[in-house]
Amino acid sequence: MRTLIRDGTVVNATGRAVADVLVDGETIAAVTAPGLFTEAEKVIDASGKYVIPGGIDAHTHMEMPFGGTSSSDTFATGTTAAAWGGTTTIIDFAVQAKGTSLLTTLDKWHEKADGRCAVDYGFHMIISEVDDNSLKEMRPCIDAGVNSFKMFMAYPGVFYSTDGEILRAMQRAAETGSMIMMHAENGIAIDQLVAQALAAGRTDPVHHGLTRPPELEGEATARAIALAKVTGAPLYIVHLSARHALAAVAEARNTGQNVFAETCPQYLYLSIEDMAKPGFEGAKYVASPPLRSKDHQADLWRGLRTNDLSVVSTDHCPFCFKDQKELGRDDFSKIPNGMPGVEHRMDLLHQGVVAGEISLERWVEISSTTPARMFGLHGRKGAVTAGADADIVVYDPAAKQTISALTHHMNVDYSAYEGMEITGKVDTVLSRGTVVIADGAFHGREGHGKFLKRDLSSYLI
Amino acid sequence: MRTLIRDGTVVNATGRAVADVLVDGETIAAVTAPGLFTEAEKVIDASGKYVIPGGIDAHTHMEMPFGGTSSSDTFATGTTAAAWGGTTTIIDFAVQAKGTSLLTTLDKWHEKADGRCAVDYGFHMIISEVDDNSLKEMRPCIDAGVNSFKMFMAYPGVFYSTDGEILRAMQRAAETGSMIMMHAENGIAIDQLVAQALAAGRTDPVHHGLTRPPELEGEATARAIALAKVTGAPLYIVHLSARHALAAVAEARNTGQNVFAETCPQYLYLSIEDMAKPGFEGAKYVASPPLRSKDHQADLWRGLRTNDLSVVSTDHCPFCFKDQKELGRDDFSKIPNGMPGVEHRMDLLHQGVVAGEISLERWVEISSTTPARMFGLHGRKGAVTAGADADIVVYDPAAKQTISALTHHMNVDYSAYEGMEITGKVDTVLSRGTVVIADGAFHGREGHGKFLKRDLSSYLI
Amino acid sequence: MRTLIRDGTVVNATGRAVADVLVDGETIAAVTAPGLFTEAEKVIDASGKYVIPGGIDAHTHMEMPFGGTSSSDTFATGTTAAAWGGTTTIIDFAVQAKGTSLLTTLDKWHEKADGRCAVDYGFHMIISEVDDNSLKEMRPCIDAGVNSFKMFMAYPGVFYSTDGEILRAMQRAAETGSMIMMHAENGIAIDQLVAQALAAGRTDPVHHGLTRPPELEGEATARAIALAKVTGAPLYIVHLSARHALAAVAEARNTGQNVFAETCPQYLYLSIEDMAKPGFEGAKYVASPPLRSKDHQADLWRGLRTNDLSVVSTDHCPFCFKDQKELGRDDFSKIPNGMPGVEHRMDLLHQGVVAGEISLERWVEISSTTPARMFGLHGRKGAVTAGADADIVVYDPAAKQTISALTHHMNVDYSAYEGMEITGKVDTVLSRGTVVIADGAFHGREGHGKFLKRDLSSYLI
Amino acid sequence: MRTLIRDGTVVNATGRAVADVLVDGETIAAVTAPGLFTEAEKVIDASGKYVIPGGIDAHTHMEMPFGGTSSSDTFATGTTAAAWGGTTTIIDFAVQAKGTSLLTTLDKWHEKADGRCAVDYGFHMIISEVDDNSLKEMRPCIDAGVNSFKMFMAYPGVFYSTDGEILRAMQRAAETGSMIMMHAENGIAIDQLVAQALAAGRTDPVHHGLTRPPELEGEATARAIALAKVTGAPLYIVHLSARHALAAVAEARNTGQNVFAETCPQYLYLSIEDMAKPGFEGAKYVASPPLRSKDHQADLWRGLRTNDLSVVSTDHCPFCFKDQKELGRDDFSKIPNGMPGVEHRMDLLHQGVVAGEISLERWVEISSTTPARMFGLHGRKGAVTAGADADIVVYDPAAKQTISALTHHMNVDYSAYEGMEITGKVDTVLSRGTVVIADGAFHGREGHGKFLKRDLSSYLI
Ligand SMILES: [Zn+2]
Ligand SMILES: [Zn+2]
Ligand SMILES: [Zn+2]
Ligand SMILES: [Zn+2]
Ligand SMILES: [Zn+2]
Ligand SMILES: [Zn+2]
Ligand SMILES: [Zn+2]
Ligand SMILES: [Zn+2]
Repeated sequence: MRTLIRDGTVVNATGRAVADVLVDGETIAAVTAPGLFTEAEKVIDASGKYVIPGGIDAHTHMEMPFGGTSSSDTFATGTTAAAWGGTTTIIDFAVQAKGTSLLTTLDKWHEKADGRCAVDYGFHMIISEVDDNSLKEMRPCIDAGVNSFKMFMAYPGVFYSTDGEILRAMQRAAETGSMIMMHAENGIAIDQLVAQALAAGRTDPVHHGLTRPPELEGEATARAIALAKVTGAPLYIVHLSARHALAAVAEARNTGQNVFAETCPQYLYLSIEDMAKPGFEGAKYVASPPLRSKDHQADLWRGLRTNDLSVVSTDHCPFCFKDQKELGRDDFSKIPNGMPGVEHRMDLLHQGVVAGEISLERWVEISSTTPARMFGLHGRKGAVTAGADADIVVYDPAAKQTISALTHHMNVDYSAYEGMEITGKVDTVLSRGTVVIADGAFHGREGHGKFLKRDLSSYLI
Repeated sequence: MRTLIRDGTVVNATGRAVADVLVDGETIAAVTAPGLFTEAEKVIDASGKYVIPGGIDAHTHMEMPFGGTSSSDTFATGTTAAAWGGTTTIIDFAVQAKGTSLLTTLDKWHEKADGRCAVDYGFHMIISEVDDNSLKEMRPCIDAGVNSFKMFMAYPGVFYSTDGEILRAMQRAAETGSMIMMHAENGIAIDQLVAQALAAGRTDPVHHGLTRPPELEGEATARAIALAKVTGAPLYIVHLSARHALAAVAEARNTGQNVFAETCPQYLYLSIEDMAKPGFEGAKYVASPPLRSKDHQADLWRGLRTNDLSVVSTDHCPFCFKDQKELGRDDFSKIPNGMPGVEHRMDLLHQGVVAGEISLERWVEISSTTPARMFGLHGRKGAVTAGADADIVVYDPAAKQTISALTHHMNVDYSAYEGMEITGKVDTVLSRGTVVIADGAFHGREGHGKFLKRDLSSYLI
Repeated sequence: MRTLIRDGTVVNATGRAVADVLVDGETIAAVTAPGLFTEAEKVIDASGKYVIPGGIDAHTHMEMPFGGTSSSDTFATGTTAAAWGGTTTIIDFAVQAKGTSLLTTLDKWHEKADGRCAVDYGFHMIISEVDDNSLKEMRPCIDAGVNSFKMFMAYPGVFYSTDGEILRAMQRAAETGSMIMMHAENGIAIDQLVAQALAAGRTDPVHHGLTRPPELEGEATARAIALAKVTGAPLYIVHLSARHALAAVAEARNTGQNVFAETCPQYLYLSIEDMAKPGFEGAKYVASPPLRSKDHQADLWRGLRTNDLSVVSTDHCPFCFKDQKELGRDDFSKIPNGMPGVEHRMDLLHQGVVAGEISLERWVEISSTTPARMFGLHGRKGAVTAGADADIVVYDPAAKQTISALTHHMNVDYSAYEGMEITGKVDTVLSRGTVVIADGAFHGREGHGKFLKRDLSSYLI
Repeated sequence: MRTLIRDGTVVNATGRAVADVLVDGETIAAVTAPGLFTEAEKVIDASGKYVIPGGIDAHTHMEMPFGGTSSSDTFATGTTAAAWGGTTTIIDFAVQAKGTSLLTTLDKWHEKADGRCAVDYGFHMIISEVDDNSLKEMRPCIDAGVNSFKMFMAYPGVFYSTDGEILRAMQRAAETGSMIMMHAENGIAIDQLVAQALAAGRTDPVHHGLTRPPELEGEATARAIALAKVTGAPLYIVHLSARHALAAVAEARNTGQNVFAETCPQYLYLSIEDMAKPGFEGAKYVASPPLRSKDHQADLWRGLRTNDLSVVSTDHCPFCFKDQKELGRDDFSKIPNGMPGVEHRMDLLHQGVVAGEISLERWVEISSTTPARMFGLHGRKGAVTAGADADIVVYDPAAKQTISALTHHMNVDYSAYEGMEITGKVDTVLSRGTVVIADGAFHGREGHGKFLKRDLSSYLI
């Protein structure tokens, strides 16, 4: 079956042109001058619209266990919402539970996801326990297509790894060519501040933010970079939120060290003021690292331009306000950490294009091309180019929409962007050649999405 | 007429894939999965080879008047040599003579080049005289497709502009969206050092280097950046050679200022030791800024990785050793400044790929994609993509060759890289769909190359 | 004749102690435990007060010719005002007029000052014309005790030196061990901005500030530092006003380069808002570099703490509002540049002690000890210590006063600090053993002050 | 009893002058012009010599328990050796043993030292266990004159504190105005490297150095600074050895943060090459942080000039080669950490004066004046000034000596500087007015030295 997407402006990371895209089966067969092909079973008119590679959200948490509950999107609902938003690949995190092995963990996550996803998906592996066995299992994980390992400098007693454990894992990453992803907050120091706040009766959501000062994100980021320097491992800082951390990343990158960072839409658009909303409303915005003061936002946009921030992911980790967020009504430290977002990343970043913060090509680069190259999907994803998977979004730059929990497709009872007006809208989405979104309706199905065995990142700075 | 380039590895700036390229007339009609098309008048087998966008050398000086002589390549010989080396576009400099207008200058350069070039070409404009008329003429120059203006902080009495003049031109560049290119050396201070050296009888070629210390390139670079900051103009530092200058560029880029820099192959491979060769041999290597000590080279390669250096051009400006370089036999300051290089840029940079300094994609990016985007050729040049001009190089990564003046095609009697062994070699070159190099022979013609009316750069950092 | 200053808190740059100071003739004979000596012709009770070394104002302009007029304080009135304010040494600038020699200039300044000063004085030399003769004369100037040479990167056509001239003078300074002082503003670029402002009818005093952006002070400072690096000369940046310049100084000092900087009280307490006062009032605040926006002040105080700013001088250069400042009523560029201040430096800096910006010892250091060490007066000035000149101020930290033109002793018809309330007041001042201020009256005389033949600075960073 | 030190060159931190010093009892009664006093019970002729404040070694470990043994100098032998070397004050470390309180610890150290010291001494407190009780006891320690608290980011299981514990102690330091001193090495990561080296059979002394890379000192230093920033505590980095750490300190100081650092003579003169000496010889040089490669030395000297390094202490912690160092013959990790040095600090730093690395005044400042001001001895120690304790060294700058274990007075069987030739030598030493060293003999006694109850540091950057 052939599909022809006609007359759109094909936008890739390094340029744009009016062209036709011929899809044959699951892949792009050709990108051609307009009108070169005329016959296809299906023709999509993209005139006046952008034809971009499907978004890749390299940081999501579907049905992730956290503090006795689970994030509210399943792989089914979460990937469907992703599709609605023009994201055709997610990379989710398999979470090693203490006492279990990495490979068992991976099996478990395959069980959760396989046959349920609406779009393609891959896994990173969270290492919660660094021991000889885990280190040894990094190799079979890599062979199984899971070659990026997330570690935490926060959450002592849960995910936290010591600097010695991080050093060991990084040595192993350097040996195997795999990537260490780091949640960089000094959780040991933060936990003291949290305990002090609670002891003093400061239990409101905003104290989640106040007890996690940006200096402690900057510190941990610099520390992770130093450990990466000592071991020679490539390093990817997840969900960077503070200018202090950005400065550390920029300095390392200037020296040519293989250090990369992603930020998230919430850090670009929301702030600690949202966490300080009256009542318990602020709980909706509780995530880690926390939302920062507004003056960090301009620095993050600048980082996206300077490429000190290479990727924007969502850290999608939704918890319903009712019943879930409410677990922390009397104690901010009990509020499940995380926010929904997988559906709105492409739209939110497009506002950066509209506002002149980034170029059209850079929009594609940070949301699709770079994640693909960073996480071993080069050749398959991240570009509208012959031979690649036909993950394609036809995006209407002129359409208007308003974000709301009433209309979104994520399985969560609130939106962090409720009422926000957006310029631009996903028109049509193809996942590996199949139309999954068109005419305002979902045409895909659970199980269409395949697991992506990822190659190693070949990224140099 | 259709040409099909089959089974090569198509390399663009953000990825590579085995694909076929269909050329129809002067443009690329399609990039397709291998075998999708089978019929074409001409088929080129590229299996086992790279198919890359033709190189763009954004900094050449053909038949440029300098101190009573002229650079030894004409537009005909120089562009032919470029084609041999896989460069299908040059951007040369029209040089305003004092007392003449920019538009007259442009006419004069069109006269020199039009009908004589083997590959496409554009012009930058060198402003030697900043006055109301020159500033006013920037606009018609831009309308005529010449929208980048080079200025000099060196060469007092010749090309030198004062900081006040630079400020005025930058204000005008900011207004018109055009780009200021800067030769950043503190020529006023350097001229004192030169006069002192000559007065002390230090007349050998190496003193050309010793009287132009890297600190004075760093200083001028920082000064140009400060003036660009005050005026809001985008700035492109040409032929950056010293780590001091790189540091200034990196700092500005970190803050998000629109500052860019190119370096040249000679700064990556040669050093002041070459200028200190016995006898007058060092004169072959006299250019400005001068070759630096070897320890700068690693910093420049790092800059190419970190994107603080965005482009590699040649500053091709050949003078024959005999009769031309010899003008300075008794006085280094009389040696014509410049070195040949347009033919070897692609090969020399490919050595960086072989050595692991840069990736294959980065090779394409710094030699073709970024120059195209930087200088208003986006859409037309710099990528193997449907709709673009069919400027294509089939490059054999496994071939071996040795650089020598005996075999090169530039009109100059020496090579700065004499005897250097190279891995990789241009196999076939298409310029706007026409095969100009194939089977070890030149199949092009003078006058095939067209003038490129360039668009404005839309570059953000 | 012996004078005993009893029971005061003697404050030096590195400590304080209650002690007696015995003055014998012109010098300090001893600093002793309280009560060790009991006999002296004259006893001054300093209990409850500070006994500090007399202030050294290393940057004043008495009766300086400027644009057809002269600064309004003579050496007589200016040094008397200095004495009132606890400053017992000034270093003024001899100004080479074009076409005259340095030694002639020095003679002329000796004529102006000798026999007229109330306190001791030295000279720096302003070089307006860098030629072989001037460079040669640096040596006899040094032998005559004038070993610091000020140059200007601003004021083209008046004091301006080119970078080549600066380089030559710096080479000579490096050879002779003397110091280059730099007025660091890019005057060439600034003059364009000034011409543009005037052409556009922006003639108000505030445009003096707006046409001299802080980036152009930062740029010139960095350039002077680069030239000093190339030549090996020590460098002293005068009247630093902008954080941009401070950053350049701090960076150089971090690398161990012998670069120093002074700021002035007006940059610590006043701002461009003062220049924007209604009517022509702003003219009172016109000086170069101009007053900056308020946010620079905290950076300057920090610089004083970190020692990136080593000295506070006044750049005292008074012009009466009536008749003098009024010359620029229709054209800000005609307003004589300069502000009065020699009388209030010690008091204004003491406010920094009161506010906790600097320590008591640091107050003494930046106003007296460091200027003495920087400018070759070590051993003689800058400390209350046996063997030193008895230049001593008894300062009452608890007294209150209000600054006003009605009560100040400078020969100028306005105060830049009119109405400002000050904590602390000079009680008694000795100049080389003679009481010149006591009981609210001046007891000195014209001609008491002697010329100081200064030694070379032995300063390392 | 009065002693007159005549005709010497009195050197203080900010200047020098030929002067007489009158000592009356334990304090300096007067510093006077030469010859002012003529009567005194005792006259010391200092002509041609320096008269400097007695050295203050702010970092020593006498009879310190470490890994089953103790450092080999007792308070008696160590302070006697100090006197020989011109050091009249030491500040030693009381070491909290786990399970004991700070006040008990202090008592224990008083027991060790009281009545046994040849010169004055104070204590810092090492906190090994941060809990509510320790934090509470900081206040009575401060009241008892012990107001600087050392913590360790290295030595897990022994002295190591977590970042959370450091944060708590810093909060308490900020509240109480006391100082946190930090051993800044990432011991958690280092211990992995040590375990890996031992497991691989790399047991030689040099591996002590190789497993403690300078990056991990830089990292820990930056981390300590970040925690100090968050809490507002002043911070003093002990025994800084690596340029990586110096860079972190310099950056913090540039921003005005109250961060200080000391280095030690061994880092200025010795290197990792000494640790790599054949056989077990390298064990003599095992200390933490380890000796670095030689190229760090120039950076440290520069830091001493720029004041990013404010103090030089010895970290004197001697272990005999025989029996003690030998404990680690088969396992470098069992070599007792530490080197002797208290006797040679003044001499070794004087070599820096001779070599032109630092000025004479700076020698006094970093070895005496600044330690006194930093650690609450201002007014009493650190300057030759009326009212201060008569801790005075007459130093002969022209004398020659050779360092050797055969002649030194420290109780240890080797010298790290064996055979090194020194220019300059202590001639006479007074401790609180008593001559303790003269004519090449020790005239002091155990128990002369008194405990110094220290005031708070009033240091700003
Ligand atoms: Zn995380
Ligand atoms: Zn996450
Ligand atoms: Zn040039
Ligand atoms: Zn050129
Ligand atoms: Zn000035
Ligand atoms: Zn001045
Ligand atoms: Zn230690
Ligand atoms: Zn120690």
